[in-house]
Amino acid sequence: MSTSSSWSTSAADALRVGPGFRLADIDPRSTPGYDGDKTAGRADLEAGRAPLEDLQERLFAQSVAGTATGSVLLVLQAMDTAGKGGIVRHVVGAVDPQGVELASFKKPTAEELSHDFLWRIEKRLPDAGRLGVFDRSHYEDVLIGRVRSLAPAPEIERRYGAIVAFEAEAAEMGIRLVKVMLHISKDEQRERLAARLERPEKHWKYNPGDVDERQRWDDYMEAYQIAIERTSTPIAPWHVVPADRKWYARLAVQQLLIDALSDIDPQWPAADYDVEEEKRRLAAS
Amino acid sequence: MSTSSSWSTSAADALRVGPGFRLADIDPRSTPGYDGDKTAGRADLEAGRAPLEDLQERLFAQSVAGTATGSVLLVLQAMDTAGKGGIVRHVVGAVDPQGVELASFKKPTAEELSHDFLWRIEKRLPDAGRLGVFDRSHYEDVLIGRVRSLAPAPEIERRYGAIVAFEAEAAEMGIRLVKVMLHISKDEQRERLAARLERPEKHWKYNPGDVDERQRWDDYMEAYQIAIERTSTPIAPWHVVPADRKWYARLAVQQLLIDALSDIDPQWPAADYDVEEEKRRLAAS
Repeated sequence: MSTSSSWSTSAADALRVGPGFRLADIDPRSTPGYDGDKTAGRADLEAGRAPLEDLQERLFAQSVAGTATGSVLLVLQAMDTAGKGGIVRHVVGAVDPQGVELASFKKPTAEELSHDFLWRIEKRLPDAGRLGVFDRSHYEDVLIGRVRSLAPAPEIERRYGAIVAFEAEAAEMGIRLVKVMLHISKDEQRERLAARLERPEKHWKYNPGDVDERQRWDDYMEAYQIAIERTSTPIAPWHVVPADRKWYARLAVQQLLIDALSDIDPQWPAADYDVEEEKRRLAAS
Repeated sequence: MSTSSSWSTSAADALRVGPGFRLADIDPRSTPGYDGDKTAGRADLEAGRAPLEDLQERLFAQSVAGTATGSVLLVLQAMDTAGKGGIVRHVVGAVDPQGVELASFKKPTAEELSHDFLWRIEKRLPDAGRLGVFDRSHYEDVLIGRVRSLAPAPEIERRYGAIVAFEAEAAEMGIRLVKVMLHISKDEQRERLAARLERPEKHWKYNPGDVDERQRWDDYMEAYQIAIERTSTPIAPWHVVPADRKWYARLAVQQLLIDALSDIDPQWPAADYDVEEEKRRLAAS
């Protein structure tokens, strides 16, 4: 955004999945579109807080005024430790919590399982004028769902089309989807899990199940490849964000959000009352 | 908390409502318990971010580990412009959004009105391990409810007792209530409303209804006096926070939250798995 930033290509253009996309070709340590180093990246992240806050406040103002028609929905998917929590905390956490709707999707409950996989998702779509965040999402149902055969193969197959239709409908309602896969390497994940095991105050972040899933790394990468290929559409494209460098991933997602909000270009709502008359009433009160 | 802070008395002790409490005796420009000026106050607010974040993360860790038994619920009540939004943004906004449950209570819907006034409130009580925030609350039903006679007088009367019983039950469930009235003066409100009318990008924050309520200022102060008197209990006391100085109000609420969390004293959850065994499994994966 600012002239001093080190983006040579916009984050959206550098990260958007295109034809012939191969996840295996993307280096998790790379910094697509960005020429700066960690120091520059951190400075740019700091510099991006104000425009993100401003755009989000304008959108929120519209929701209060009842004039909002659009919203933004950040969908975060990733292998464990890739940094979803850090994005929520350091990128989304910079804006006014009043305008944010955060939904964390855990293992489905019995009730959720008794419905179509999109049932619990639809209920959490952001209201107009809000910034929604999905920490995991309907994609779990074609990721762990596929890797662990949690549904019959034909049902998994059906879901790709169902997701495309669902997201097209959401877009039609004015929801701007920002779909992000945080892409870490298997080695980097080992290091991050090991760090959690080393420090007692991080033990709560570790789950033996993480290693079980890790042992199916290649299956997961294949499931991501297929899911991304089949659900990346012009209206709801995927972005694969290399995430071995946390500073880059945060900066990139911040830029994607700024882009999406700039695209809505929310204006401050006009007063729906007589400003001069209200000044008089107020002065007399 | 830190030795360099300018608190002579803890915020909780300085602000807790006691016997013989008179709202009219509290100066909205005062800074009870705090000897520092605005510059010191801002520095102390900044210094309080880390301990608040740390305590909240410990509590959240317990909720993830399934060992949390307690939670904190900040109840914010105030006249318009007193700064509830600023508290949410600058105090609560400093902690990890994943552990926060924010509920804004607007004018009740038809469905909500068809139930007891506590029906919509109960549903939004924070889960164990969370920091809940009520931006307005069940107290509206004895504030605007009383001033505007939105319910018959005997029903309003009944509500004070119902609130005391409800909050005792919530406390029993492990919810630590931090009830805060942000107390501004009528003059300060005029200035803040006038500022909103002066700047087009603030027009959305102004509502002609604000002046209608303002014209009943004395009735509101009386309703607050009665509500605070009748619902301040040892387990769920009220705190009246002078709010003409925004920096003081934010600092004071931050301290109240730190106190409440310190009182829970959440410890990092112990691993429920064999750490050494997991290190081996991870290394081999």
